[in-house]
Amino acid sequence: MNSTLAAVPLAKAYRLLNHGPTVLVSAAHAGRRNVMAAAWAMAVDFEPGKVAVVLDKQTWTRELLEAEGSFVLSVPCAAQVDLVQTVGNTSGRALDKFAAYGIETLAGEQVSAPLIAGCVAWLECRVLPEVHNQQGYDLFLGEVLAARADTRVFREGRWDFRGQDSLRTLHHVAGGHFLVIGDGIQGQMLTPKA
Amino acid sequence: MNSTLAAVPLAKAYRLLNHGPTVLVSAAHAGRRNVMAAAWAMAVDFEPGKVAVVLDKQTWTRELLEAEGSFVLSVPCAAQVDLVQTVGNTSGRALDKFAAYGIETLAGEQVSAPLIAGCVAWLECRVLPEVHNQQGYDLFLGEVLAARADTRVFREGRWDFRGQDSLRTLHHVAGGHFLVIGDGIQGQMLTPKA
Repeated sequence: MNSTLAAVPLAKAYRLLNHGPTVLVSAAHAGRRNVMAAAWAMAVDFEPGKVAVVLDKQTWTRELLEAEGSFVLSVPCAAQVDLVQTVGNTSGRALDKFAAYGIETLAGEQVSAPLIAGCVAWLECRVLPEVHNQQGYDLFLGEVLAARADTRVFREGRWDFRGQDSLRTLHHVAGGHFLVIGDGIQGQMLTPKA
Repeated sequence: MNSTLAAVPLAKAYRLLNHGPTVLVSAAHAGRRNVMAAAWAMAVDFEPGKVAVVLDKQTWTRELLEAEGSFVLSVPCAAQVDLVQTVGNTSGRALDKFAAYGIETLAGEQVSAPLIAGCVAWLECRVLPEVHNQQGYDLFLGEVLAARADTRVFREGRWDFRGQDSLRTLHHVAGGHFLVIGDGIQGQMLTPKA
């Protein structure tokens, strides 16, 4: 277990996704497990924290997630860009990605799905069943049951990646081309014109 | 009209949101208009392009959007951080944000909602009515009808912000604290272990 991991209060778990990182989605059911990449994921509520993620009908992860009723979103970092590209473009039906690519995991506290080691944040979620969304839009909603983050880059409810370039989050554009998140900037309230 | 704007093919419009930027949501109805900020927005389909965005029930923009059945997502940039913070923390019920803060607009091609000038991408959308999602989750789905981007930073279906720091997209964490998007990195496929 990485000693830099710490629990994130559930009321602040949305901040792990608020800046729009690409995520890894993992699920496990009846002794099988899988992990895939998803750029289409976001927070949808504060407390209880909720998330939304789009999962194509062809994916093995989706089958496991639907069968088990829970999943994990892991937030990968720049050091893992090849891993993200690889699990996003291979199917777990044909091979065990964890064995094939040497993917290490951490155990969840609340769900059976594995947390992907080396990531910088994790959200353990239960599926909020919404068949219409799942069938019509491939859209899954989840309630956040537990959240952790790497304190080297997430402290006191804020991301700060300065001096930690290898831990910066990845933001997929297309075709394995990612943008890496930068540094912070503070917005100020403007004064309305009279 | 900014001469660096160009249409984005609808099949590639998802790439404008794929990296998870905070957006401005605008809507207009019966001579009234408004704009707000939203960090909870993402693509949900390729073609026809679809988007999802979370809009609190208290917002005036949501009322206009529901009445008109359409909206615009504008993707703001670092130069606009104070504007994003301001429109995200004021209500258009009390004042005309466009007049109060000198917000310039561009006309949409397909919808009545204004595009926010100075942003780096725009998606004109029609609401896909899903009352259950709207009432239960504040979640709105839209179909993308038209898309444009600033060719200084989005060309040939890719973002490239090098040399254009003021045009980098904003990714809200909390409380007016944003992360600015960085540069690109290419993921490579790993070779599975035997």
